Order: sequence, then C-alpha cells, then structure tokens
Amino acid sequence: MSQSDNSLFFRTEIFKTLKGVDEALSLIKLSVKDIVLDCIEIDVKNSLHYFPAEDILAQQDVPNFDRSAVDGYAVISNDVIGSSPTNPIVLKVVQKIYADTNFDILKPINHGEASIVYTGAPLPPNADAVVMFEDTKFDGLMVQVFRPVSPYQNVSRKGEDFSKGSIVVEKGTLIRPWHLAALLSTGLDKIRVYRRIKVGVLSTGSELTEKYNVSGIVNTTKPLLLSLVSEEFCEAKDFGTVPDDREAIREKILQALPEVDILLTTGGTSVGATDLVSDAILSIKGSKLIFHGVRVRPGRPTGMALVNGKPVFMLSGYPVASFTGFEVFVKYTINLLRSSRQLDYPKIRARLSRRLAKPVGVKAYVRVKVFKVGEEYVAEPLRLTGSGLLSTLTRGNALLVIDENVEGYDEGEVVEVQLIGGVV
Amino acid sequence: MSQSDNSLFFRTEIFKTLKGVDEALSLIKLSVKDIVLDCIEIDVKNSLHYFPAEDILAQQDVPNFDRSAVDGYAVISNDVIGSSPTNPIVLKVVQKIYADTNFDILKPINHGEASIVYTGAPLPPNADAVVMFEDTKFDGLMVQVFRPVSPYQNVSRKGEDFSKGSIVVEKGTLIRPWHLAALLSTGLDKIRVYRRIKVGVLSTGSELTEKYNVSGIVNTTKPLLLSLVSEEFCEAKDFGTVPDDREAIREKILQALPEVDILLTTGGTSVGATDLVSDAILSIKGSKLIFHGVRVRPGRPTGMALVNGKPVFMLSGYPVASFTGFEVFVKYTINLLRSSRQLDYPKIRARLSRRLAKPVGVKAYVRVKVFKVGEEYVAEPLRLTGSGLLSTLTRGNALLVIDENVEGYDEGEVVEVQLIGGVV
Repeated sequence: MSQSDNSLFFRTEIFKTLKGVDEALSLIKLSVKDIVLDCIEIDVKNSLHYFPAEDILAQQDVPNFDRSAVDGYAVISNDVIGSSPTNPIVLKVVQKIYADTNFDILKPINHGEASIVYTGAPLPPNADAVVMFEDTKFDGLMVQVFRPVSPYQNVSRKGEDFSKGSIVVEKGTLIRPWHLAALLSTGLDKIRVYRRIKVGVLSTGSELTEKYNVSGIVNTTKPLLLSLVSEEFCEAKDFGTVPDDREAIREKILQALPEVDILLTTGGTSVGATDLVSDAILSIKGSKLIFHGVRVRPGRPTGMALVNGKPVFMLSGYPVASFTGFEVFVKYTINLLRSSRQLDYPKIRARLSRRLAKPVGVKAYVRVKVFKVGEEYVAEPLRLTGSGLLSTLTRGNALLVIDENVEGYDEGEVVEVQLIGGVV
Repeated sequence: MSQSDNSLFFRTEIFKTLKGVDEALSLIKLSVKDIVLDCIEIDVKNSLHYFPAEDILAQQDVPNFDRSAVDGYAVISNDVIGSSPTNPIVLKVVQKIYADTNFDILKPINHGEASIVYTGAPLPPNADAVVMFEDTKFDGLMVQVFRPVSPYQNVSRKGEDFSKGSIVVEKGTLIRPWHLAALLSTGLDKIRVYRRIKVGVLSTGSELTEKYNVSGIVNTTKPLLLSLVSEEFCEAKDFGTVPDDREAIREKILQALPEVDILLTTGGTSVGATDLVSDAILSIKGSKLIFHGVRVRPGRPTGMALVNGKPVFMLSGYPVASFTGFEVFVKYTINLLRSSRQLDYPKIRARLSRRLAKPVGVKAYVRVKVFKVGEEYVAEPLRLTGSGLLSTLTRGNALLVIDENVEGYDEGEVVEVQLIGGVV
C-alpha cells in the first residue's frame, strides 16, 4: 500500500517543485516555438472564424471613387453658399447618375449646374458635394437649393473606408462577419489562413462510463473538453476512454498523435503516487516532459509533454479542473500555433458577496456569479474547491483570477472579474 | 422625375409616420406570437449551441452517493477530534474503496476504524468525513491521523452538484460546453431542443456584383448578414441577388419563403420614393406590412412584413445599416422564435473622446472604439453616419446606444457602451 508515500512530505517537498502559472506558460511557449502550422487558401466567403496567416491588405481603395452618400444633387459647393428656403439658389440639372452608371458617360458639371445622384453613385467631375433631395425642389429642368453644403458633405471619399495597401485584417485576427465583408469590399476573394487546429481528447479511468449508469461515473470531462475545443474554432477529435493501464494508455496516445496537432488526456495524472499518463508518455521514445504540476487551483496536477514533437496536455479528470487547465494552458497553446490573440473575456469590477481565502503561492481561478444590484455589480463566489462540481460552471457567469501573492479578498471588496457569460 | 416628391415634406411628414424602436419591437412580438418552431430530440453530446425547448431537470442526484473528494481515509469524524502530528489518533484500516468499487461489497466502519478511499469513491456506511493521505501515516494495518476533520469535510455529498428534479438547464438557454457536461452528469442522453432556425438572405440591386470589379459595387451586405445569421446559431441560406425589378423580387421572395423561417432582404427599400421590395411584398396575396421605417440611425428604412405567415425583414443595402437592423430587429425575432434570451453584450462605462450629437426622436447605434488609458476606458466614436463604411465595424469594438430623447453627449462624458469585441 503505497499511500504511505503521500505523507506530510507532500505539502512541503512536492509543492516546491510545482511550477508557477507564468513559468508553465513560458515553458509552453519555448517548447512549441518550432511548430509550424500549415496555411490554406480559402474563399473569403467561407472565411468566417478562420485566422489570417498574414496581414491582409486592401487591394483597392474603398470606395474606389468619390461617391454620393445620399440621394440628392451633386453640386460645386461654392455655388450654393448662402442658399436658404427663402433665398434658394437655382441650378440647371444636366444629368442623372445611378449607382450602376458607367463612369465613361459621366459629364463634368460647370458652375451653375447640378447632377441628380443616387446613393452610391459616382460624383461627376468638378462636383465636390451633394445636396440632399429634402433640401431642394425640382421643376423638371432646374433645381432650387435651400441649404448650403460644405466641400465633400454627403460624399464618401475615395479610400475613405479602406485605402489601397492598408491593413484590412491583421494576421491572427478572428474573422468576424464584418471582417469578411470588409475583405470582399477591398477586392479580395481568396485569402491565406491557418488551417483548423486538430485537438484530440483521450480520457483515462477504469471507473468511467460514456453514459450514465448507477454504479459507474459518467465521463463528463471529455465532452466538456471536446465542446471547449469546438468553441475555440478547432477541430475536436474524440479518442474515447482507456482503462487505468499504462500500456493501454501508451498505445492509444501513439495511435492518436498522428491525427492531431494537440492531444489532451484526462485523468490518470496526480502529483506524486500513481501517475499513469505521465509514465505512459515518458515510456515513449523521444518524449519530453515539459512540466507536471502547477501552483494553480483547481488543476494542480496539470502537465504538459512533447511527444513526437506534438504538445500533449495532461489534464485533470475532474471537469472544473480540466476547464481551468484548458482555459489557462491549452487555449494559450492554440493561440500560439495560429498566431492569434487570446480572445479575452471582458472585465468588469464587482463587489464580493463574501470573503475568499486561498493559500499564498497558488493562482486561483474562482467561478463567480455576477449580478446587478441597483447600479452595482455583485460577485458571488461559487466554490474555491469542488473541482468535480459542474454546477459551479453552469451557475457561474464569470471568473475571478486571484494572483499567487494574494491571500484572498474580504467580503465587500471590489475585484475585477472576467465575464464568461452575460450578466444576469 | 419623381424626386420632387422628396422635398422638405420628407423631414416633416414622413418622419412622423416612422415607428420608434420599442414600438417596432412590440409590433414584431405581436406579429410572430403564433409561430411555433418545431422541436427535435437530439443526443446531449451533439447539443452544443442548441436551445432547450423546455426546462431540463436532473434525472438523478449528482453525485448519486456521498463520495470522497480526495484520496485519503474515510473516518467517523468524531473519532479524530483533537488529533495532531504530536498526538496522532490511530485507526484500524479495514478496507480499500476505489471509484469503481461495487456498492454491494462496502462494509460499514465502526468507531476506531477507517477505510482507504480514492477520489470519487463512495463512503462506506457510518463514515462521515475523509482525512487526506497527506495528513496521515500508514504502517500497513493501522493509520495515524494527524489532523481532525469536520463532518463531511472532503466529501462531495449526494445531490450536492445537482439534486434530482432540479433544473439543470433552463428552457431557451444557449447550451455551452458546461451545460452539455452537466446534462450528461445527471443521467440525460437525449433532450428536446428547438431545431435550427433557417434564415434566408436575398439581395436586391442592379448595381451589385458578387465579386469585386471596377465598375460595379460588390455586395458585402449579403455575406455580412449570412455570417451574422451563422453566429446566431441559425442556418443561413443564400438566395442571391436580384435586379431592381418588382416582379423579379416578388418571384424570388415567393421562391425563398418555403425554405426559410425568416427572410431578410437587402436594398430596394426607402421611405418615400422608390420602394421595390415593399411593393413586391404587398403585391403578394395575404401579405401584411407590419412596419416600414424606424426612427433609428443607421437603418431608418428598415421594415418588416408577414408573408405567408413568415417574417420578412426589409433591411438596408448598406452594410452598417443592415448590421443595425439585424442587431436590433432580426436577433430579437430569432430569440422570440426559440424562446431564447438575447445574448447581451457586456456593458462597461467609458469616457467619450469627443462630442456626439444626434436628432432628438431617433435612437442611434454608434460604433465606438474602446481602449484603456491608465485605469480608465475611453470610447472614440467612429461615425454617426456612414452606413456604408465597413471600417466603422472592423475598427470598432463596442456600440453606444443613444436613446431617442437624448440629444447626444459632450466630450468627456462617461457613457455605458456594449462590448462587441475585446478591449484593445
């Protein structure tokens, strides 16, 4: 019975060998720096939620000509100075220009003349502003202008939206609907993006069942991680659950690795006694343990190795601890590989509804429920421990990160929390 | 030349007939109240980003027995009162219980006895707490306990995460990774959700091209809307672009409607002169105009009709105005149909970098760029007009909504903005 190993020694000695969160992140960065993720060329129309592999530049000025921003009369602004309803200035209407009018047939206007222009239509040569229809009266030949316009009023100028050669979307930006539309507007129809990162999830645990039954423990951590992977715009691959057997784990890892960029294992990891996953990993030739054990709560047993050059994360079998491991370490790695910025949660300040204490030296990720009381946000901590309790995730809508050197916060203190969901 | 219709009359008369935003929303609610969206039964594992059609109740207590939250010794807490490293209390170890140990073979413990328990293992009868391995020393038969435990310390109690019959996920909640895991944990493997809402997009505009070319205007509004539809977890359907021809528009609407739950049209809508889309819609037998023209900026010409019982939104052809129409009216409708809560953007307070004025009576949606200066957030308004400028969306990360009865804000005023993206 090897549990005598886990005596008081544990808190004092092993604790010292755990990495701090920042140190672990630095080690990850160093260990994945030579991994190159393939790029693919895709249609801009299909680029939603991809990440550009380079800064993408406007191919054209947008608009690519001075165009009217309203329906009205293109004029020479100097001509209508001082116009008013009681003192209209009269111009001769010489042409009508639509948004799809061919440039070649545009006639320049002269002083005393105006062109009807519809929204999006090019301004004729010499015109430098547009008077809105509402500020005019037309008799079929001449138009009375009731209101002056300043130069380029009601005009979208060439290059005003995007100028040729300027950056439309930076490398590593998550392409949202408006980016996609902007790229199309500047004349792009194909762009280079990183291909989807493939992240596999492999669970270990003889006690786990895939479906609920009375005696077993349903594996909720794997579907949680697979869904988190999808939400990070990666391709999730399910490698099932293996029993607590070093050889079986080793074999399954070797089988999974060629099909993924990153592998996540769950369970079978502890800092100390039995540690089947890291044993299995270290038995693979050329594998390299990067760290194992982090001063983080929950998620202390989190580890990372490079196997056949690919990052393998050893996450807790407990859903909330694996969530923290994913949030803090896996997301960071995913973002490194595709040069993307971490999509930070918005932060707000909220008043703590009760005291929160934690050991110094450990970074804590506490799930809190934020709600509004009058004009103020209140944060109710759900649990500092309880890494098995999914309800802390379903009931919470924010994370409070407590730094290593902070002992905790008093009831009523105002803290900054990261909103994961909307405020109730 | 019908533009003489659009004289000063426009601002005074037509303006009065425009609906306020709240009034338009009420009209939408009333007009879609009888629409019933089908439900489907799906595997919980595939339920990410669906919306439950009913409150989903826990089928079982989770955990469904008192289980150990740590590796250690299950004890009767009363037995170890006063234990310490210098004054250990010695208990006889009578069994070892794993997470997958069958309940039937659990022996009750008596005073003076302890059971080895691993994390997740059931507590034996009579035990009411667990002493962690770190706080013990084992000689193979007897264990020395160095630290007392309070009743149920280190125990996850039956029903502590979810109690049988309690609500795990409320009707209309967006299923996120943790909801999915929680549902599985409570013994559910199938749930009833609303099927994906099908939203079609049909553009009108003879000047529009699908790809960029020098003389045409590339249709960026349609791909923008199709992507926004996808981001709302709906199925987006592209019905192409038709020229400015009433009959062509009518025909295409009739063709699209049977395939969608909601139809969005872009362009061909104005409040006043030419209004091909609403003309086309009104020429369809049984169609009903709900509203047309809203006191909103940008997006004044937004309209809505019921055609064959289905909501049809007439959105601007301009990307930013169509974005506002989508954000304000279409999302609202989508959420009504699937009983979901609008996923509000988080709000923060920020100081305006310059003055912003708008007409009273109009609700304005201003794109702003929020950034941090020291400890303070600053909001830089990008444009109050410029409904064609996609750069106001790509450069902005927040929306400032200015109510109808507000004239604007001064430079330096602190306002509440809705974060659409992360803060720079």
